[in-house]
Amino acid sequence: MNLKIALLGGDGVGPEVLAQAVKCLQSVEVTFNHHFTFSPALVGATAIDQTGNPLPDETLEICKNSNAVLFGAIGDPKYDNDPIAKVRPEQGLLKLRKELGLFSNIRPVRVYPSLIDRSPLKKEIISGVDFTIYRELTGGIYFGEKKLNEKGTVASDLCEYSEKEISRMAHLAFKAAKNRRKKVTLIDKANVLETSRLWRKVVTRIGESYPEIELDFLFVDNAAMQMILNPAQFDVILTNNMFGDIISDEASVITGSIGLLASASVGTDFAMFEPIHGSYPQATGLDIANPIAAILSAAMLIEHHGLNEEAQAIYMAVENAIINNVVTSDLNPDSRFGTDYVGNYIANSIVDTD
Amino acid sequence: MNLKIALLGGDGVGPEVLAQAVKCLQSVEVTFNHHFTFSPALVGATAIDQTGNPLPDETLEICKNSNAVLFGAIGDPKYDNDPIAKVRPEQGLLKLRKELGLFSNIRPVRVYPSLIDRSPLKKEIISGVDFTIYRELTGGIYFGEKKLNEKGTVASDLCEYSEKEISRMAHLAFKAAKNRRKKVTLIDKANVLETSRLWRKVVTRIGESYPEIELDFLFVDNAAMQMILNPAQFDVILTNNMFGDIISDEASVITGSIGLLASASVGTDFAMFEPIHGSYPQATGLDIANPIAAILSAAMLIEHHGLNEEAQAIYMAVENAIINNVVTSDLNPDSRFGTDYVGNYIANSIVDTD
Ligand SMILES: [Mg+2]
Ligand SMILES: [Mg+2]
Repeated sequence: MNLKIALLGGDGVGPEVLAQAVKCLQSVEVTFNHHFTFSPALVGATAIDQTGNPLPDETLEICKNSNAVLFGAIGDPKYDNDPIAKVRPEQGLLKLRKELGLFSNIRPVRVYPSLIDRSPLKKEIISGVDFTIYRELTGGIYFGEKKLNEKGTVASDLCEYSEKEISRMAHLAFKAAKNRRKKVTLIDKANVLETSRLWRKVVTRIGESYPEIELDFLFVDNAAMQMILNPAQFDVILTNNMFGDIISDEASVITGSIGLLASASVGTDFAMFEPIHGSYPQATGLDIANPIAAILSAAMLIEHHGLNEEAQAIYMAVENAIINNVVTSDLNPDSRFGTDYVGNYIANSIVDTD
Repeated sequence: MNLKIALLGGDGVGPEVLAQAVKCLQSVEVTFNHHFTFSPALVGATAIDQTGNPLPDETLEICKNSNAVLFGAIGDPKYDNDPIAKVRPEQGLLKLRKELGLFSNIRPVRVYPSLIDRSPLKKEIISGVDFTIYRELTGGIYFGEKKLNEKGTVASDLCEYSEKEISRMAHLAFKAAKNRRKKVTLIDKANVLETSRLWRKVVTRIGESYPEIELDFLFVDNAAMQMILNPAQFDVILTNNMFGDIISDEASVITGSIGLLASASVGTDFAMFEPIHGSYPQATGLDIANPIAAILSAAMLIEHHGLNEEAQAIYMAVENAIINNVVTSDLNPDSRFGTDYVGNYIANSIVDTD
């Protein structure tokens, strides 16, 4: 397979962790006989510094001409601490999502048995956790009409959803469940909210065309409890933008290894893959950042393009590194291994087991 | 002090746990020389069965003529499983809150050292947790305008807040913090929502008249993480209706003892106190329900009326029962003690330590 991949390293440790992901993709090329082309492009604070624009036209062009975007991280304290800054690095990411029509955010959460002690939850609760969250990313209350009366004494936010916005999310979630444990849990508040009732109606109807998938419903307040009491019950979680924001962030801490979490943002025509961790500016250039989330993002990228076996090879190489304790110091304080060493080790462990 | 207390036992185990709370209040009367009058009244499924109305006028009258309402629990499977039921027990509670103007829900969460092993979180994380959540209860998106277009393809919910709704909540939270560790954390999503920005503005301004109180802000997605990573950081949490629903339910499971949680719903003129657990219908009359949440609700009631020392005496009596393992079987599977025995034990341990 030929794949054109836009490489948007961004700020802080973004470029260095992305470099490790590229090594792994190159290892996949050789091992499985594919051809990947990498096109680096500027984004974020780095782009502002060099062009004045957090998302230069050239970057957008490169992304639109690629099969997928591999993204590092964004954000620089220089801009965060400047209240009068007119352009901000984060605007680059928001604009990119919008321009590419990325309406869905996908976050896998799984526990690595050898890291289970890092979880804030007890072992028996977190053991076996392996689920994926499908969060709607461009609708709902975060993007609805905002009002403030003239006196500044009454404010409002509108949460709106259309059948179309819901159904494209539902299809993604049901399709994902087919390749997993065949269960979708819709998180909503249908006992109170009209938008939630529409979600439930549309998702239920679409579920009928996926008869092999079990469809469950959970109110968001109960879901926030279940994520702590029994997270292993989840397979595919489907939810709106705001509930997804809250529940996916809650979910990101239960394994105790936030540095290992990758994510995808997917639309009809484009898809982007990135670690959920930030730009970690104080670690820039120190060769200490954990490259695993970036490497797993690359695995999600090729999996998205149907290279399942190849993605599995990356997942196994990552597990192998974790089991053998070839990890950065965030996972093992006694570790002598840096970003680059761990990246090489994982890239070199990618093998075709067939 | 003279206090008129309306007793709304409600459904399931509600009446039996409330009976234990009354014993404790009677013990407070004798020990501290107060006079409490108890007026029982019907509510919920019991009220439907006897009068056809989940909140009979007489009950509302009794509540309005009392200094406080002590509430048991509501809900009966007979109505839950009947999709064509026109009146539902829960309507009684919703109407009561509305009629009494109870705009604020207050939920204390604390860990009992002797029960710490019950928590789904690791001991070092849950140890020392002791905070109270102030949730706005009658505004926001749960009560905002709901729309569905004619075709049924677009739905919306409006989240609206006024300065007045926010400021009365803020005063409650700051006042509560005065008697605690002097810290208020406002949970919002001010980086995205207009209503959250109004909350932040109003709460910040009111905070200036409480200079001894530290005011912190936390985005709701981050709060959902912090509740798992470091819940001991919280003292008083202040938040809107929906965020409060999610965060307070998440908080209710971190101690592992949901059967011990009491709550208050407070308005300008009235206040109601109730366990957060449900009516637990399958346990009705079996003398196995845990009475502690109801007893702690009674403690919150008298504390609300300024009887701090008396409330402390109840809290100490409860702790004493837990430490001596005089608890129901939900807390200790080997327990031989029933609802009534535990209630008597706690009531008899209430002493004036002065
Ligand atoms: Mg978030
Ligand atoms: Mg709730």
